[in-house]
Amino acid sequence: MTTLHLAVDRDSGVAIHRQIYQRLRGAILEGLLRPGQRVPSTRTLSRELGVSRLPVLTAYEQLLHERYLEGRVGSGTFVSPALPDDLLQVPGAGAPRPSPTRPAAPPSREEGLGPFRLSVPALDRFPHALWARLVARQAHALTHTQMAYGDPAGLPSLRAAVAEHLRTARAVRCETEQVIIVSGSQAALHLAAAVLVAPGDQVAVEEPGYPGAWSALRAGGARLVPVPVDGEGLSLDSLRRRGRRIRAAYVTPSHQYPLGSSMSAARRLALLEWAGRQGAWVLEDDYDSEYRYVSRPVGALQGMGAHERVVYIGSFSKVLFPALRVGFLVVPSGLRQRFLEAREAFDLFSPTLYQAVLAEFLREGHFVRHLRRMRGVYLERRDALMAGLTRHCGDRLSLLNADAGLHLAVLLPPGLDDREVVRRMGGRGLTATALSACYVGGDRSSGLLLGFGGTPARRLLDATRILGEILQARP
Amino acid sequence: MTTLHLAVDRDSGVAIHRQIYQRLRGAILEGLLRPGQRVPSTRTLSRELGVSRLPVLTAYEQLLHERYLEGRVGSGTFVSPALPDDLLQVPGAGAPRPSPTRPAAPPSREEGLGPFRLSVPALDRFPHALWARLVARQAHALTHTQMAYGDPAGLPSLRAAVAEHLRTARAVRCETEQVIIVSGSQAALHLAAAVLVAPGDQVAVEEPGYPGAWSALRAGGARLVPVPVDGEGLSLDSLRRRGRRIRAAYVTPSHQYPLGSSMSAARRLALLEWAGRQGAWVLEDDYDSEYRYVSRPVGALQGMGAHERVVYIGSFSKVLFPALRVGFLVVPSGLRQRFLEAREAFDLFSPTLYQAVLAEFLREGHFVRHLRRMRGVYLERRDALMAGLTRHCGDRLSLLNADAGLHLAVLLPPGLDDREVVRRMGGRGLTATALSACYVGGDRSSGLLLGFGGTPARRLLDATRILGEILQARP
Repeated sequence: MTTLHLAVDRDSGVAIHRQIYQRLRGAILEGLLRPGQRVPSTRTLSRELGVSRLPVLTAYEQLLHERYLEGRVGSGTFVSPALPDDLLQVPGAGAPRPSPTRPAAPPSREEGLGPFRLSVPALDRFPHALWARLVARQAHALTHTQMAYGDPAGLPSLRAAVAEHLRTARAVRCETEQVIIVSGSQAALHLAAAVLVAPGDQVAVEEPGYPGAWSALRAGGARLVPVPVDGEGLSLDSLRRRGRRIRAAYVTPSHQYPLGSSMSAARRLALLEWAGRQGAWVLEDDYDSEYRYVSRPVGALQGMGAHERVVYIGSFSKVLFPALRVGFLVVPSGLRQRFLEAREAFDLFSPTLYQAVLAEFLREGHFVRHLRRMRGVYLERRDALMAGLTRHCGDRLSLLNADAGLHLAVLLPPGLDDREVVRRMGGRGLTATALSACYVGGDRSSGLLLGFGGTPARRLLDATRILGEILQARP
Repeated sequence: MTTLHLAVDRDSGVAIHRQIYQRLRGAILEGLLRPGQRVPSTRTLSRELGVSRLPVLTAYEQLLHERYLEGRVGSGTFVSPALPDDLLQVPGAGAPRPSPTRPAAPPSREEGLGPFRLSVPALDRFPHALWARLVARQAHALTHTQMAYGDPAGLPSLRAAVAEHLRTARAVRCETEQVIIVSGSQAALHLAAAVLVAPGDQVAVEEPGYPGAWSALRAGGARLVPVPVDGEGLSLDSLRRRGRRIRAAYVTPSHQYPLGSSMSAARRLALLEWAGRQGAWVLEDDYDSEYRYVSRPVGALQGMGAHERVVYIGSFSKVLFPALRVGFLVVPSGLRQRFLEAREAFDLFSPTLYQAVLAEFLREGHFVRHLRRMRGVYLERRDALMAGLTRHCGDRLSLLNADAGLHLAVLLPPGLDDREVVRRMGGRGLTATALSACYVGGDRSSGLLLGFGGTPARRLLDATRILGEILQARP
């Protein structure tokens, strides 16, 4: 048993459970708590800290979910042995099992806003009137300076608000100066590729993965190296086998696109260790990080590493709306100047009005309130989708991880071509995406990506019934 | 004497003088009127057309200014012999004189909105209230479809309005499908470079020229080849001497940046002929084209060539305001798909709100009214600047062409370092730019670029007095 000498600060504005989570995680990452070591019971720790047991339970639950901790029935809670200490401090072996590869098609341009449309948030639940009022107010108040040329890094008030949000909500380690506002995660990736990748450089990408990222990376001259993912995320064994010429790895740790897993803590540490040893960069696309249904959101990979090898990428497209076109990067301080120079060469700066509106939206707390409301909305939609799929398509589909995000992935039975299914769905007004379009290589799984963010629960239920008919009707 | 069988259409919505101008220019370009050939007197033509003499005079004045025509005292008006017919139809010689090179410093980042700030329009005369009202209305009216993902080519209503404006006001030959909306001319150039230039390709740029363009071209991997400009624009002799490996030429024909000349018709035709023969591209940055003080605006280079070798680039930054971040390209139809693919890889699409506002601003005629008002405003500011410079700095500066645009260039006496003068001006609250920063090569003129768009006439007069003091005070 250990006494941890933790303390909580009731005036910090950070929730108590979050503070406990961060301190325990920090103690593990810094080696104060070693793999296999027992941690205090929630009862003991709550007494030590002088807090109720609930926040301690919440923190433990999160750490168990992220596999920093593991529980053994009847004998308490321990730091996970799957966190080899050589990963924490010095280079070494001890890697996770190799990932299974999955069964096998080309990309389709997604169109329309029918049920299952990917990447579209609940526009029907967006606070339109409030937003339009803020836009109108800012448009009236625009000063001459704000109408002229802006800072290539972005509006200072927005950068400060984003940095604060990321520190609190995503455990990102950043100062305002590290934040660069761009026109979305696509632009962020394009910029990162231009700065970090020379023509012909190898960049590891998740297989299956996000085709939008590939085009941004390829535009920067990258040669893509697909690396398989399993239930814990990118396979580090596979990544290491690709050798020393990989210059960067693009990952979606919060909610792997498209399969939906979240990267385990061990895998995250191993990836950071790989990047440090290799002198490579990690491009962390914190896509869909805001919505997690089974536990608290997992903190960002960026916040785990001492070495500054991570470029963190986020966007407001899925939390607010895509046509806003505001995203951001958090870059290592040493790279800031190069990023800004490239940004000026690309498109100077982002339009000021929406930056000012967004800064106010964040500052006034509307953003956090909106996120909180949306979690409930998306949970309901996800549950409706899962229930409908089970009822109408249960014998024909297998569901993958649906713990987070705004879509879930399902696998189709062998021999059923997902592109054909997507075509038939399109004929019935459903906008699905073929999983097989998400592979760089030739060995593709056949499946469907079903977005649920943009569609009310009742319509999702109807849509699963139609999908069931389509799957039954197959020759 | 020739009878031209021209006709005007009173119902076309195009001004009569513009129709006459376009038809005469078309007849010259198509070889119906040959170099050296006499054209009807304005009196004769006005009778033939059944119109008053004023529009005919206006059209002739413009054609004389653009050097399609030349007048000989007492003997009438002729098609300019400086338009060799081999330039019009078939490859051949007959080139303009080589350009003189000019005497010589590195770029400074422009900051602040003091008098002489470059590229800033008359924000004090912008119709704020109207604009804010349109923004508020569009923000309230934004549909779910408009909040989701937009067309990478831009909002169809804005593209149609831009195409119509360019056809009417700039003589650009384009269909709506050729217009791609991006976030400004910097983004347009970055995109054009990505599509047209392979890493290591040579791209000709004007010397002196626009450093912003260089960084966009270099980001695309271009190697810059400086080509001198003279009073008629880019020296074609020099360009031809650079050989066959030049892949593209970046030019500012309406108002050469920074020296202010406009490219002569002969030079334009020669440039198009060069591009066709060479299989090269012309990147026409129609920067500052809207404001011309000595005659009607010169039509775009893009509208002169039959061969589709021109990518036309424009922006609303200087006509409305920079923080709007809306610009556009007109691309040859055959390249459209490649531009759109690159655009999606870069940043998907432009924010929808301002596109919708701008479409309405154009459609409702506010844009044309604003342009018309601003011409008067800028003429007054230019005249105040010229008067002030003559009064306070006349013996120390020589003014270059100030027929168009929102800035003028002045040369400093030999031995006076423009960067030092700019520094001293900064100390007195004046935001000028050093001419010497606009050279790729080492042979630089010392001078100042003095913006007059963003500063009221009285402040400009005051600023010239301060500039005079600074120049007198030099050791």
